[in-house]
Amino acid sequence: MRDDIEAFVFDAYGTLFDTQSVETTVEDAFPGWGSVITQIWRMKQLEYSWLSTLMDRYEDFWSITLRSLDYTLRSLELACDRQTLEKVAAAYLELKHFEDAPVCLDALASYQRAILSNGSRAMLASLAESSKLAQSLDHIISVDEKGAYKPSPGAYALVGDVLGLPPERVAFVSSNGFDICGAKSFGFTVIRVARKPSLPQVGKLPMDEKRFFALMRGQLEMLDYPPDFTVGSLAEIPNLLGPEAARRH
Amino acid sequence: MRDDIEAFVFDAYGTLFDTQSVETTVEDAFPGWGSVITQIWRMKQLEYSWLSTLMDRYEDFWSITLRSLDYTLRSLELACDRQTLEKVAAAYLELKHFEDAPVCLDALASYQRAILSNGSRAMLASLAESSKLAQSLDHIISVDEKGAYKPSPGAYALVGDVLGLPPERVAFVSSNGFDICGAKSFGFTVIRVARKPSLPQVGKLPMDEKRFFALMRGQLEMLDYPPDFTVGSLAEIPNLLGPEAARRH
Repeated sequence: MRDDIEAFVFDAYGTLFDTQSVETTVEDAFPGWGSVITQIWRMKQLEYSWLSTLMDRYEDFWSITLRSLDYTLRSLELACDRQTLEKVAAAYLELKHFEDAPVCLDALASYQRAILSNGSRAMLASLAESSKLAQSLDHIISVDEKGAYKPSPGAYALVGDVLGLPPERVAFVSSNGFDICGAKSFGFTVIRVARKPSLPQVGKLPMDEKRFFALMRGQLEMLDYPPDFTVGSLAEIPNLLGPEAARRH
Repeated sequence: MRDDIEAFVFDAYGTLFDTQSVETTVEDAFPGWGSVITQIWRMKQLEYSWLSTLMDRYEDFWSITLRSLDYTLRSLELACDRQTLEKVAAAYLELKHFEDAPVCLDALASYQRAILSNGSRAMLASLAESSKLAQSLDHIISVDEKGAYKPSPGAYALVGDVLGLPPERVAFVSSNGFDICGAKSFGFTVIRVARKPSLPQVGKLPMDEKRFFALMRGQLEMLDYPPDFTVGSLAEIPNLLGPEAARRH
């Protein structure tokens, strides 16, 4: 990795925090449907972030999270009042962090460490507090400042605004294919986190919703702008630093 | 419907033409995988149209169609050379039209009739010729003129540029949820075509790829901007016209 990297910026949902961890809350509210709802909800949540940006009808991520859950439940013909909808959606405020997150953030303490996320400021503040990762982060940046979701260049430009660094001095870390492309296209050094899939053979038949989700969201996109580095765990990121960087920091 | 509608503008993929009709070509090339590839391919094709627009990295729909098929095959670890990739992708040049399309277009002959589609000009020309719908269309408009995919307002603005009509004089017809929202948000009168699903119980467990696709793509989006009218078939559209409109046309 370049020796003049000054900051590590992390995606939140799917990279530091496990969006699949909402499944227990969902299953409690809708027994038998936990897995299906979790997958469709997450896919629609991303889709609505893209569509609302494209339509010039931005709404914050809490609104998008509610709308996408509402869509999911209606599609499955599962009745739900507003109170239950908000209670289930609140699972996104207390996602589990991945186990490899704290050790990675601590090892990078001599760098600026930030989150750049689609989440609203309130959602991200809640996540950082409940997970106790707040103490290991210098900045938490929400795309809400710009009113445009990733992978819009405007969303990534917030990093420069807040950290005062040009893109080439920033290492951007994400597990999400669209985010990897967007960040690389914008000009960051990009590290892909490709954790071992929980499904041993993702594309195997018969297809169920978890395999379908893994096929749609877990792979590298074929959109050019591949990552500079790929790691199997956040814990491997400090190993990417060269001796010069280690000496400087 | 308003009496001053002057034009009917149709979405192509999924509205006039059946994207599921590629499955036989796909199955011939990859036996046992026809259904899975067809669903993932179509979902990624749309996703790549949105992501490339958001990233300011527009490429035409033929390129997007190839990239999304490439992604699908790699994800499933199905080997494929460039020649096979292009041969399979060419199924999008000869999609079957839905049976209700010709009768609808013929009944609206006294109006301007157009397609507004994500497809490239060459793709749409091929579709219109092979399906013989070309003779019933006054204009075939590709978003390629604007370099932005639906639901960007810029894509819908092409209708006004070509037809010389303000949005309120245009009825826009689509089966695609995102397109319905985008068109309504832009200002058209919008007709949703909700054909009877081929799966009797879409959200039933166990979930397979066709159910998952129907859940993700076949429903009305929860993004505001609902359609003005919903029909079960294109053939019902002429029934929406009031007596005044019938007299004028």
